[in-house]
Amino acid sequence: MKNIKLIVAYDGTNYHGFQEQKGTGLDTIQEVLEKALSKLTKREIKIIGAGRTDAGVHARGQVVNFKCDDWPIPLTKTALAVNALLPNDIAVLKAELVPLDFHARFSAISKTYCYRVYNERILDPFVARYALHEPRRLDVQAIDEACQYLIGEHDFKSFQSKGTPVKTTIRKLTQARADKEGKLVKFIFSANGFLYNMVRIMVGTLIQVGLLKIKPEALRDILEAKDRTKAGPTVPPQGLFLERVDY
Amino acid sequence: MKNIKLIVAYDGTNYHGFQEQKGTGLDTIQEVLEKALSKLTKREIKIIGAGRTDAGVHARGQVVNFKCDDWPIPLTKTALAVNALLPNDIAVLKAELVPLDFHARFSAISKTYCYRVYNERILDPFVARYALHEPRRLDVQAIDEACQYLIGEHDFKSFQSKGTPVKTTIRKLTQARADKEGKLVKFIFSANGFLYNMVRIMVGTLIQVGLLKIKPEALRDILEAKDRTKAGPTVPPQGLFLERVDY
Repeated sequence: MKNIKLIVAYDGTNYHGFQEQKGTGLDTIQEVLEKALSKLTKREIKIIGAGRTDAGVHARGQVVNFKCDDWPIPLTKTALAVNALLPNDIAVLKAELVPLDFHARFSAISKTYCYRVYNERILDPFVARYALHEPRRLDVQAIDEACQYLIGEHDFKSFQSKGTPVKTTIRKLTQARADKEGKLVKFIFSANGFLYNMVRIMVGTLIQVGLLKIKPEALRDILEAKDRTKAGPTVPPQGLFLERVDY
Repeated sequence: MKNIKLIVAYDGTNYHGFQEQKGTGLDTIQEVLEKALSKLTKREIKIIGAGRTDAGVHARGQVVNFKCDDWPIPLTKTALAVNALLPNDIAVLKAELVPLDFHARFSAISKTYCYRVYNERILDPFVARYALHEPRRLDVQAIDEACQYLIGEHDFKSFQSKGTPVKTTIRKLTQARADKEGKLVKFIFSANGFLYNMVRIMVGTLIQVGLLKIKPEALRDILEAKDRTKAGPTVPPQGLFLERVDY
């Protein structure tokens, strides 16, 4: 028995998220990957993904793993072989052999997401698929200040959408910052785990800080409230990227 | 009577080229722009485009003009007003008033195109819509050397696909070069005019130079042959950008 780990990048625009949606007939990243892997190996492959990205969310460093009796392709050639069977908007970047107890989701110790905002009056058509458009000027320094309140171990209940119930809403955020790169503002977050829509609600709230509608220190109160209605809106999926997963 | 000039950018992926295709029911840039302008002004606007980009070809600096009895919107607000009626993959970048004799196509003295090649083993899903994938290493210095044979006034008949007949196949190329930027090789061409598919055939030929299949000086012989079969293949549209039009 072998356990194979893949690093996968995808443009999520045309997919209904990562996770298989049985019987819906909608394309998901998981199903397209499983179909390619199964075709390549002539056996049924079921994969486990580190992060269940939502419809329209992208990934530069999604991690998946799967087990199989043996692996017929040299690992250095696996990415190319799988990619030949994948559409252009999904690519395997790397394949490696991992210990049998490696689990893409449960073994992860940290995930990093990036949310991109195009902060300019007129939206660039080549960025539209990969960023939220915010034509009003964002104060990146105020956003960065607000980010400081999010870093650390907190109950992030205010930053969670309704979804599958979770045991605890406490998460440890190890990185939260905003970088201005040309006309893009990049929000970067690392944590040991994220609640459902957590990044998209944090960004929706931080944008209100950037627009000077709320003060940076409001983030402390919003965290303490443990109340979704106190935080900002959930921003749309196209700006969100799963950047990397650490083990 | 007023004559309005617009600078327009678009992701051409989902369009059947710039030019109106009567009765086909296919979306073209021209038709989508005319519809938005007509809706905004409540009169029928017909536009003239500087370059008739083909299906799947992009533009960062397409120029169009149109005449109308009067223009109801301040010019500084025109781009935003039109963009509000356009899909996200087309954007008006700038609007200005020009003399009545300005004609987007006939007044142009030079156009600049860029063709992007992603020169890396594994295709980045976020570049796939905007570049040709060439996994074999390209020798950019050899390409640049070959470009020197193209610069100047020549008969480019070897670099023309069959299409609408033209009076002459002589064009003056004022810029031809290849720049390596990270994993992208950008081919840049400026000329007083381009023949049908000229850029895509030049790039198809220069890629053969970059792969060391033909020598840089072969470009001289191909030009002299005035024979399409002597040049390389026509590369696909998704790498091509109309960058700018000069007047």
